[in-house]
Formats: sequence, C-alpha cells, structure tokens
Amino acid sequence: MSHHSDEAIPSATSDSFWEPGNYKKTTKRTEDGHKLCNDLMTLIKERSEIEYGYAKNLRQWAKKWEDIIIKGPEYGTTESAWKGVLGEAEKRYDLHMKIKNDLEKDAITKIRNWQKDNYHKNVMHLKEKKEFDEAFKKVRYVVI
Amino acid sequence: MSHHSDEAIPSATSDSFWEPGNYKKTTKRTEDGHKLCNDLMTLIKERSEIEYGYAKNLRQWAKKWEDIIIKGPEYGTTESAWKGVLGEAEKRYDLHMKIKNDLEKDAITKIRNWQKDNYHKNVMHLKEKKEFDEAFKKVRYVVI
Repeated sequence: MSHHSDEAIPSATSDSFWEPGNYKKTTKRTEDGHKLCNDLMTLIKERSEIEYGYAKNLRQWAKKWEDIIIKGPEYGTTESAWKGVLGEAEKRYDLHMKIKNDLEKDAITKIRNWQKDNYHKNVMHLKEKKEFDEAFKKVRYVVI
Repeated sequence: MSHHSDEAIPSATSDSFWEPGNYKKTTKRTEDGHKLCNDLMTLIKERSEIEYGYAKNLRQWAKKWEDIIIKGPEYGTTESAWKGVLGEAEKRYDLHMKIKNDLEKDAITKIRNWQKDNYHKNVMHLKEKKEFDEAFKKVRYVVI
C-alpha cells in the first residue's frame, strides 16, 4: 500500500497525530515554533518602541518646561513645586528607558539565542522539521 | 514733589517694594500670576497629551497582537501567556487614560476656575493689577 497517497488511506478513528498520515500537523509545529519566535521578538520590539516614545516625550516636556520656569517669573517654593513635577517626569523617563532596554537587550536577545540554538534553517527548510518529517515517514512504512 | 518722575526720587536704602516707586514689581506679580495660571494649564495639557499618546499606542499594540495571536498557530497555556502580556497593556491603557482625564478634567478645570475667580481681565488690563497700582500710587502721595 506504499504507493497510496495520504488521502487514500482509510480514515482513522481519531485525527490524532499518531494516526497514519496525520504526522504533518506535528512537524508543522516545529515550523510554527520558529515563526512564533520571530513574532514574539517583533511583539516585544514594538512594545519597547512604545516605551521609548513615552520616555522621550516625557524628557522633552520636562526640558522644555524647566527652561520656561527658570526664565519665568515664578520663584521660591512655588517654583520648586513646578520643578518637582518635572523631576517626576525625569524619573519616569529613567524607568521607561530601563524597560525599553531590558526588553531589547534581555528579552529579545534570549529569544533570539534560543531560536538559534534550537532551529537550523537553510534556504529551503528547517533542518529539525525535515528530520521529524523523515522520521515519521519511516515509522509509517514500518507500521503499515 | 508730586510733579517728580519716579526716577528723580532719591535712591532708597533698599530695593524693597515699600520704598518709593518700587511698588511696580509687586503689582507686576499680579500680572505674572495670571500668566502663570495659563502656563501651568499649558504644562498640564501637554503632559496629558503625552499620557494619551502612550495609552493609545499601548491599546493599538494590544489589539494588533491579539488579532495576530488569535489567528496564529499558538495555543493552550502559551497562547494564554501571550494574551496575558496584552492584558497588562490594556490595564496600563486604562491607568494612563485615567491620568489624562484627571489632569484635564480635574487639575486644569480647577486652575481655570481659580484664575477666573481671582483675575478679571478686560481688553487693556487686569482689573486687580490696576486697583493695586492705584492704591500704591495713592499711598505714595500720602507718604511723600
């Protein structure tokens, strides 16, 4: 029956991956895993850009108003209170820049390294998927 | 000596506002106060726009990735973990939208009302500054 196509095999009682011809969704999981690493890195990168944008805007705002306050007529404790508001923004800038850097340098780097260690891609395919595909095919012939 | 200009008055031993002719920096304070209310409202408005921008970006990012994750191949607990990351962004959206609204509806409104209650501006001048100027001038003539 080895000349039969996958579709010609009588339908199995379940669609579990161990049924004849059903291994493909399992090996596709390997391919998906590689793609999902890329997606996750993109997701994190986009979030880090949002954090960076927020931090940058806070700093620009603080710098602009510090200049206005210093040159303006306010003085004494009220001037200090105004500056205190800007100080909060500067601290928030530091915090969100730290989040941005941690996401990029820590989270993304770890995913990239994990992907590199676990998947080996050439022009045509993932080495790991090919190996799984071939192993499943081999086992199928043994069983049938 | 009432025909003398302010400059012709012999220099005082201090430049305190109660010295002859020195009242102007005091009444200017009234004018400054009105302007500083405007500045403070602008400062707060600009900050609220930064909060709004951050919140909006977080929500867009969460919606975009929720769609990708739902349509994508990830499933089970890992899919839940991805969605959890987006849930955090949604909560942060709520928080920063609250900050934005509080700044605009609470802080700015209070300053605007306080300014309106305490300063009365017509085309030419602030009523309060004019009154103070006239009071100082009147007292000066009494003293001299």
